[in-house]
Amino acid sequence: MAFVTEDNLSDLAVKRWATAHSPRLAELMTALVRHLHAYAREVRLTEEEWAAAVEWLTATGRISDDKRQEFILASDVLGLSTLVVQLNHRFSAKATPATVLGPFHIDGSPTAGFGADMSDDIPGAGVHHRPGPRPRRHALPDVVLDVWQADADSAYEAQLPEIDEARLRALYRTRADGTYCVRTIAPRGYAIPMDGPVGDLISRTDISHYRPAHVHFLIDHPGHEKLITHLFREGSAFLDTDVVFGTKDELIVRFTEEPAGSSPDGGTIDEPYLRAEFDFVLQPRATGEPRP
Amino acid sequence: MAFVTEDNLSDLAVKRWATAHSPRLAELMTALVRHLHAYAREVRLTEEEWAAAVEWLTATGRISDDKRQEFILASDVLGLSTLVVQLNHRFSAKATPATVLGPFHIDGSPTAGFGADMSDDIPGAGVHHRPGPRPRRHALPDVVLDVWQADADSAYEAQLPEIDEARLRALYRTRADGTYCVRTIAPRGYAIPMDGPVGDLISRTDISHYRPAHVHFLIDHPGHEKLITHLFREGSAFLDTDVVFGTKDELIVRFTEEPAGSSPDGGTIDEPYLRAEFDFVLQPRATGEPRP
Repeated sequence: MAFVTEDNLSDLAVKRWATAHSPRLAELMTALVRHLHAYAREVRLTEEEWAAAVEWLTATGRISDDKRQEFILASDVLGLSTLVVQLNHRFSAKATPATVLGPFHIDGSPTAGFGADMSDDIPGAGVHHRPGPRPRRHALPDVVLDVWQADADSAYEAQLPEIDEARLRALYRTRADGTYCVRTIAPRGYAIPMDGPVGDLISRTDISHYRPAHVHFLIDHPGHEKLITHLFREGSAFLDTDVVFGTKDELIVRFTEEPAGSSPDGGTIDEPYLRAEFDFVLQPRATGEPRP
Repeated sequence: MAFVTEDNLSDLAVKRWATAHSPRLAELMTALVRHLHAYAREVRLTEEEWAAAVEWLTATGRISDDKRQEFILASDVLGLSTLVVQLNHRFSAKATPATVLGPFHIDGSPTAGFGADMSDDIPGAGVHHRPGPRPRRHALPDVVLDVWQADADSAYEAQLPEIDEARLRALYRTRADGTYCVRTIAPRGYAIPMDGPVGDLISRTDISHYRPAHVHFLIDHPGHEKLITHLFREGSAFLDTDVVFGTKDELIVRFTEEPAGSSPDGGTIDEPYLRAEFDFVLQPRATGEPRP
């Protein structure tokens, strides 16, 4: 009988996991075993390091709960989350690119009218997002924009216990001409949580633990690829060091200062505000192609 | 500025983690990022699979506690634990090979005399382990053998709540002539826990979830490499399918049936018993070599 040696062990483990009943699970597990073993062999992992990894993984699981997902954070800071987005959303260069969903999206946000304020009485500089004024050939009416963001203290609603009503999130809808108008506060850069195992790891490097200022958008319209993305504020700090590797050139938007007076939704506004314009371009779904 | 694309993302992530303050941490993290990204690219990981992995890792952390370590179990069934042992204990062919420690070792077992019974009143067929009778040139006196095993119901003391005194574990010591004698019950094969995330994964394959019958030994003697190993019972089930890849040819020992009468420790025994003989051969530590 062939028992285990340093030479045959990885092949034995691959063969064993190849018995997974689903071909895809067999593919995922055998590739995992190969890469895991190749990693351990390459770095010649010590027993102390292995034990530290077990401890780190355990702590990462144990600190995670309904409000906090430390493994998603780990995936984010290792660049894996962004990589998975890239691999699954290879849009044409014309389409608005995707970026990470993040752990803070909440389903079922309330609907909001054209130009309605999703920030209510939350402190922060006011900003309107709206599409630019140039004519569009393929403007899409009735597209729902699911929008969410953190407050000025870096907190998403999903991180705040005991919130009764929707906070800094809403569903907007494009009008017949394809235009939309969101009113909210200006986003700010923020730090990821540094009091857990991911923060502990980052603190042992020179990696910046900040994200640049951004607002999240999710657009899932029939006949098009689902778009999960951010708009980033031009000139904000941390754009080129985004700890989750989310920044893309095409998603950086200028926020211009506007005087009090007429507002982008056709009404009036009695204080100066910021204005940002962005055209979302959806990737058509190829006919007959199964949804990924 | 170069923001993230599918092409440059992995290099950016590697560069970032290369800033770890300790050179070894930089080596470990950059290799981890490379292999993690290569894996995701190779299998073209979907977002659903990524989410399932996050959920699996979280559940694995959350089920782990003082008595149960599901990440060690995961490492075991993927062959990683055995690989790490192999990489760190490349003994000469003459030395007794190492195998996995497992999660059930308890420090500070009570000392036991030559031939003392570490199984007390625990049910099971009696067995003596002792070294073979042939002369030894380099017999080592005063070597401590830390011995532990599961009971007939597959339970280690570490898995049993509210145990007050040491159970199926003891520290034996070699005599002046290098001999030792352990009295205990015969080990039996057992199943790994199948009610957690690791069991869930294994149940979706044809992998046998059993370990063959074995007793654990830990021998840490000055001037020699620490030896963590098992002795397996010849002929027991699951030897060639050990779910943690622990079996090695050199560690399989014959248990012979002996009649009541004289016992291997020089006394008498009033019922038939099993006898196993094994010479542990320790790997001398190279002078001046730092302990790994």
